[in-house]
Amino acid sequence: MSEPRRVLVTGASGFIGRHALAPLLERGFDVCAVARRAPAGAPRAVAWLEADLLDDAQRAAVVARAGATHLLHLAWYAEHGRFWQAPENVAWTAASVRLAQEFTAAGGRRAVMAGTCAEYAWGGAGALSEAASAVEPATLYGVCKDATRRVASQVVPQLAWGRVFFLYGPAEAPGRLVASVARALVAGERAKTGDGTQVRDFLHVEDVAAAFAALLDSDATGAVNIGSGEARPLREVIEAIGAAAGRPELLDIGALAPRPGDPPQLVADVTRLRDEVRFAPAIGLREGIERTVAWWRDQPRVLYSP
Amino acid sequence: MSEPRRVLVTGASGFIGRHALAPLLERGFDVCAVARRAPAGAPRAVAWLEADLLDDAQRAAVVARAGATHLLHLAWYAEHGRFWQAPENVAWTAASVRLAQEFTAAGGRRAVMAGTCAEYAWGGAGALSEAASAVEPATLYGVCKDATRRVASQVVPQLAWGRVFFLYGPAEAPGRLVASVARALVAGERAKTGDGTQVRDFLHVEDVAAAFAALLDSDATGAVNIGSGEARPLREVIEAIGAAAGRPELLDIGALAPRPGDPPQLVADVTRLRDEVRFAPAIGLREGIERTVAWWRDQPRVLYSP
Repeated sequence: MSEPRRVLVTGASGFIGRHALAPLLERGFDVCAVARRAPAGAPRAVAWLEADLLDDAQRAAVVARAGATHLLHLAWYAEHGRFWQAPENVAWTAASVRLAQEFTAAGGRRAVMAGTCAEYAWGGAGALSEAASAVEPATLYGVCKDATRRVASQVVPQLAWGRVFFLYGPAEAPGRLVASVARALVAGERAKTGDGTQVRDFLHVEDVAAAFAALLDSDATGAVNIGSGEARPLREVIEAIGAAAGRPELLDIGALAPRPGDPPQLVADVTRLRDEVRFAPAIGLREGIERTVAWWRDQPRVLYSP
Repeated sequence: MSEPRRVLVTGASGFIGRHALAPLLERGFDVCAVARRAPAGAPRAVAWLEADLLDDAQRAAVVARAGATHLLHLAWYAEHGRFWQAPENVAWTAASVRLAQEFTAAGGRRAVMAGTCAEYAWGGAGALSEAASAVEPATLYGVCKDATRRVASQVVPQLAWGRVFFLYGPAEAPGRLVASVARALVAGERAKTGDGTQVRDFLHVEDVAAAFAALLDSDATGAVNIGSGEARPLREVIEAIGAAAGRPELLDIGALAPRPGDPPQLVADVTRLRDEVRFAPAIGLREGIERTVAWWRDQPRVLYSP
């Protein structure tokens, strides 16, 4: 009989976290989820704790209460547009390194934390690889994630660090690329975008969450890229939204000026994720975009929001 | 008329901090010192605050109260022997990055923080240089200092990071090399040491503190080594203690086995400190050792301490 495994999931009501609970349950984990507010409609098998992890006393109480052998730390400040340079990154660095330590002190054995492709130096050619690419973050967000990884890897007996590339899916922040184009099109409005020549690595949020669950359930340690490994010009993604919405004529590709400093290519080398974690995405781009557009179509249209 | 400059000094009652106050006053800073307990006999011109900087509320209150334009952050966990791997390093990382942010939010402009030669990869030949040597800390202490530097340098408008090499002086922790040999000799006891072949860079604690004051008063940013630049075999230091105590016959050099993994050479390249900060040490090794031995001679001998 194998030892019981109990995972504490932070950010469990967030964009990735809400999709991580089911795959963790399927892998046989007892799941204890924490969020500032537990969402309606979460799986019944999950124990929920409500806490602000930036508060030292609340965080310590959560760790003590969870009694977890495993930790999946997804919580962080993520407000679209602001998160790159927001001061909240520093508070989350402080809380995350202390969480790592408190988890270990309480008997925790293995943690997976959410990192980012923004830890890498951007601007090179070729796929970004955990072993070969330079770590040289250019934003406060990237620097704080990188610093958290450096400290946490010293503190937790076994730490894996999932570097997330580009993700999309239902309930994404409305200002982000896929969400904003999808919303416009299902509302019958024109969608202006840049020229879409930048090459990115997109993975559906449910696959991102499933990859985190697989990573936690593996023996891999250190940084592991979480992406599709597929190099896609943004134009392909935008056109897929047009097709899924049945309104390609509403796309206005090239109407917006390129953003200065936007790197031409950001794609993950997924060798570790594929061969060591044995994870393969289940949702292709076309299907993922179709699901996302369908989700936006089902949303009540907000005519006025104070 | 120049703008008033007010510096908040943390760790102000510590081994380095207690010697930093006078040089800061001499350079025209208003000095606000913080420590868990203000020491007796501190300069009257210094405003003292008592606080535990690991406590979020107390730390925020200190920053608000100080209203400082400058920050000299020396506080950290430093218990001899334990500090390399102690969990307190993580708490100090968390508190230090938040302190950097709170100082900036309160209008602070320039900070100097205490780093360590343990941020560098150890084991190479030649002097360690800020620009050319690899940053690859091998201890939790080094990793936490390094992570703090990475985050703080993003947060403070102007950050300089003083990487301290080996220091010695009066009131050093009794278990450390210079202190332990000096104490034995002034007590008329034999002092057993290793063979003393390791080459180190020693600077008297008053010079270390004066270098920090000079660094704060300069425009230098980024990492700056704080050392003498002189490569000294430990044997030379040990023999200087024997001479200063007038008891060279009590030295038993080579009686202790070498410590495994002790690097043969750790010496600072002090080009930046000398040319950019324009700091030169005032206390040579012989004089510094003589003062230190004299200090230990003046201490009441502790016959029993529970």
